[in-house]
Amino acid sequence: MAQGFFKNGWSKKKAGFDYFFRSLPFEGGYLIFAGLSDLLEMLNRYRFSKDDLKYLRSKGFEKPFLNYLKDFRFQGNIYSCREGEIVFPNEIIVRVEGNIIETQLIETLLLNILNFESLIATKASRVCYAAKGRKVIDFGLRRAQGFGGFHASKAAAIGGVTATSNVMSANEFELEVSGTQAHSWIEAFEDELTAFRKFAELYPDNCVLLVDTYNTLKSGVPNAIKIANEMKSRGRELKAIRLDSGDLAYLSKKSREMLDKEGFKNVKIIVSNQLDEHIIRSLLAQNAQVDIFGVGTNLITGKEDAALDGVYKLSFFDRLDRLKISDNIEKTLLPGKKKVLRHLDKGGNFYADVIVSDDHTKPSVMIHPFSPEKRLKLTGFAHENLLIPVMKKGKSTLKENHVSRIAEYASKRLSQLPEEHKRFENPHIYKVGVSNNLLKKRNKMIKDIRSKFE
Amino acid sequence: MAQGFFKNGWSKKKAGFDYFFRSLPFEGGYLIFAGLSDLLEMLNRYRFSKDDLKYLRSKGFEKPFLNYLKDFRFQGNIYSCREGEIVFPNEIIVRVEGNIIETQLIETLLLNILNFESLIATKASRVCYAAKGRKVIDFGLRRAQGFGGFHASKAAAIGGVTATSNVMSANEFELEVSGTQAHSWIEAFEDELTAFRKFAELYPDNCVLLVDTYNTLKSGVPNAIKIANEMKSRGRELKAIRLDSGDLAYLSKKSREMLDKEGFKNVKIIVSNQLDEHIIRSLLAQNAQVDIFGVGTNLITGKEDAALDGVYKLSFFDRLDRLKISDNIEKTLLPGKKKVLRHLDKGGNFYADVIVSDDHTKPSVMIHPFSPEKRLKLTGFAHENLLIPVMKKGKSTLKENHVSRIAEYASKRLSQLPEEHKRFENPHIYKVGVSNNLLKKRNKMIKDIRSKFE
Repeated sequence: MAQGFFKNGWSKKKAGFDYFFRSLPFEGGYLIFAGLSDLLEMLNRYRFSKDDLKYLRSKGFEKPFLNYLKDFRFQGNIYSCREGEIVFPNEIIVRVEGNIIETQLIETLLLNILNFESLIATKASRVCYAAKGRKVIDFGLRRAQGFGGFHASKAAAIGGVTATSNVMSANEFELEVSGTQAHSWIEAFEDELTAFRKFAELYPDNCVLLVDTYNTLKSGVPNAIKIANEMKSRGRELKAIRLDSGDLAYLSKKSREMLDKEGFKNVKIIVSNQLDEHIIRSLLAQNAQVDIFGVGTNLITGKEDAALDGVYKLSFFDRLDRLKISDNIEKTLLPGKKKVLRHLDKGGNFYADVIVSDDHTKPSVMIHPFSPEKRLKLTGFAHENLLIPVMKKGKSTLKENHVSRIAEYASKRLSQLPEEHKRFENPHIYKVGVSNNLLKKRNKMIKDIRSKFE
Repeated sequence: MAQGFFKNGWSKKKAGFDYFFRSLPFEGGYLIFAGLSDLLEMLNRYRFSKDDLKYLRSKGFEKPFLNYLKDFRFQGNIYSCREGEIVFPNEIIVRVEGNIIETQLIETLLLNILNFESLIATKASRVCYAAKGRKVIDFGLRRAQGFGGFHASKAAAIGGVTATSNVMSANEFELEVSGTQAHSWIEAFEDELTAFRKFAELYPDNCVLLVDTYNTLKSGVPNAIKIANEMKSRGRELKAIRLDSGDLAYLSKKSREMLDKEGFKNVKIIVSNQLDEHIIRSLLAQNAQVDIFGVGTNLITGKEDAALDGVYKLSFFDRLDRLKISDNIEKTLLPGKKKVLRHLDKGGNFYADVIVSDDHTKPSVMIHPFSPEKRLKLTGFAHENLLIPVMKKGKSTLKENHVSRIAEYASKRLSQLPEEHKRFENPHIYKVGVSNNLLKKRNKMIKDIRSKFE
């Protein structure tokens, strides 16, 4: 397609694309937008290498276009929600403007990284919500989708996860790193007590003991208590025990009792083993005694949803608005350059978002995009313009993109989202509407297009 | 842990680890083992860079161990099923032997790549099985889990997918590359017919037209037929049309009729849009007229399962067999160095697999690993030793690892798997047992371990 645009002589013609998604993952009530800083960095490094060009040549691409690619740099403008923003279906999250070739070429890269990081940040946020302030650690790399684990651990941090066992991502993105021993450590010694004792000698400041290799309550916890006593006699403290199998509610309560009885109220309990937001909620509802949750597979792969359905659609080209229509009205798009205005109630909480043509002012009423009989008054609310410039002529204008700051922003924005949108079962649907002007424009374009074949 | 082993002075002590999984993804009846050649290549390149060591130093790792890592090379031996092998729960798929540090260090890398590629190869195999010989193309990169898409497209090819839209993976792994136009191409022109005509002029040898931008049957297909006629008059042929929305069963049948009526029986129909093995089967059961399926998200993320639960467990260390036991008997392991013998019936089809201590001969009876009352006679069957040497002292001994050959092997082996294991609903469970000797060894070890705390 890019070569086609090039051969049409359109390499200077301007186009605009919108990134948005259609349905929320995890049957949830919101999405945390993530991946923006990685996208901008990748766009900044976007090049066609000699090898790339040689390969494309072998596939039949033609010299003039390959020459164009040789010097290709993405030089478009990007307007975007802030990374960590809470966003909803059908609203524009990112708007890309530039020539038709550059804006088209980046489609797959943009979709890949934004869809994935947003999915995982959102999953992480749900897991942390269920954990009610307790720490959550990412243990997922072993089951991550190949190299996908690299950005997944970062996205999990954006969603509120405290630390990761993924050392490479921790190094790259300055995440807190964390890990404990595996069963192989215990098994390598002649018995569990010796294995624990050796670990405590080696890591007296950060000693976490895995207590379920042989029998949690009869062997693991009693041995951990012996070690805790030995450490205490040397002026040290056992940091935590970890439960990785069995009935975590029952075992955590029994372990807590045993530890407390021996005076080790400060020794924390970490639990892991196929956790997700629902299991964590259930554990806490059973009064499980847990200080830290280690969450792996379900967090890092976004189970059960595995993918966000974000799309990237042409909205204008060569000074004209563009529109794909569909037999499903829900898949029909909104034409032209647009912005998103978020309305806040008097307490500063999110009230409703409206999509408006970029050159229009804030409307006083918004309309449901697919059920025009549904309307909502927007007078008397403060509002924010969610799309801000983040890349200008191919240069990132982001001032702050450290993970910890993005996570803080996500957390702050989540606190502005009313609770009823956060519950796991049938969350309240956040209202996203369109302005009357935009709806009229869309309906006129649909009519014009249909008149050609009906 | 690795530093702990090092500080114990164990850096020359030998260990063995087993890779296996516990449950089949997709409620299916088999797994295609994939990722081996990528694993071996990564092990070959496994190094700690200066940056890595600096980072580890900052995290408190100590000089002597960092010096050890500076020159670290994986120099172990690996025995493995052939890549593309059909494998089942609880049997050893890969056996890693070496010193305790090197065998422990590679755990996450090994699990990450084998779990993921096996998951996707298996999903692809199911999708292709449903497609009944029709071509399947991977369209998934835009929804892949970040960089995970890189290996996912390769794994999909191992499972039988014909081509991919993922150009980078196609280049790296010599996969067939394929793509069609997006809606943005159509929308960029003043009308659909002009967009089609231009595409046909640019790509007369490989012209696929996307017919659902405005209205499939009233606009898209009639316009495609006009272009097919124009191409015919120039001695060219329209290759295919693509349907990407709406009722694919209905639209494909109507489109086929319209094309056939105008004499374009050779123009193929490609369908895409949230396909998976179940939808493909349903489409074909409805007699949908489809030549090629474009499958994206569900293929490339392994939806609904997102991860294979493969694990990597210590089986021996320092000349002694090792064992983790568990309150769940299903999570209790098999100790020591083991092999897997596959039995074939007279037609050459898979009959049953038995896990045996490596130094034992083929047993005449196998026993269910968790229900010892279940037994199966193994006399009168030919058998194969599934684990073959693939890495010796850190050097790969694989002779052939081209994707196309791995895919051929998977396809051949799949043809030896009886049909009842391939069906989607309640597939027949393939029999995997253990030898009596191995079971006795395990039970004795469990008794010995338990005697210490009971």
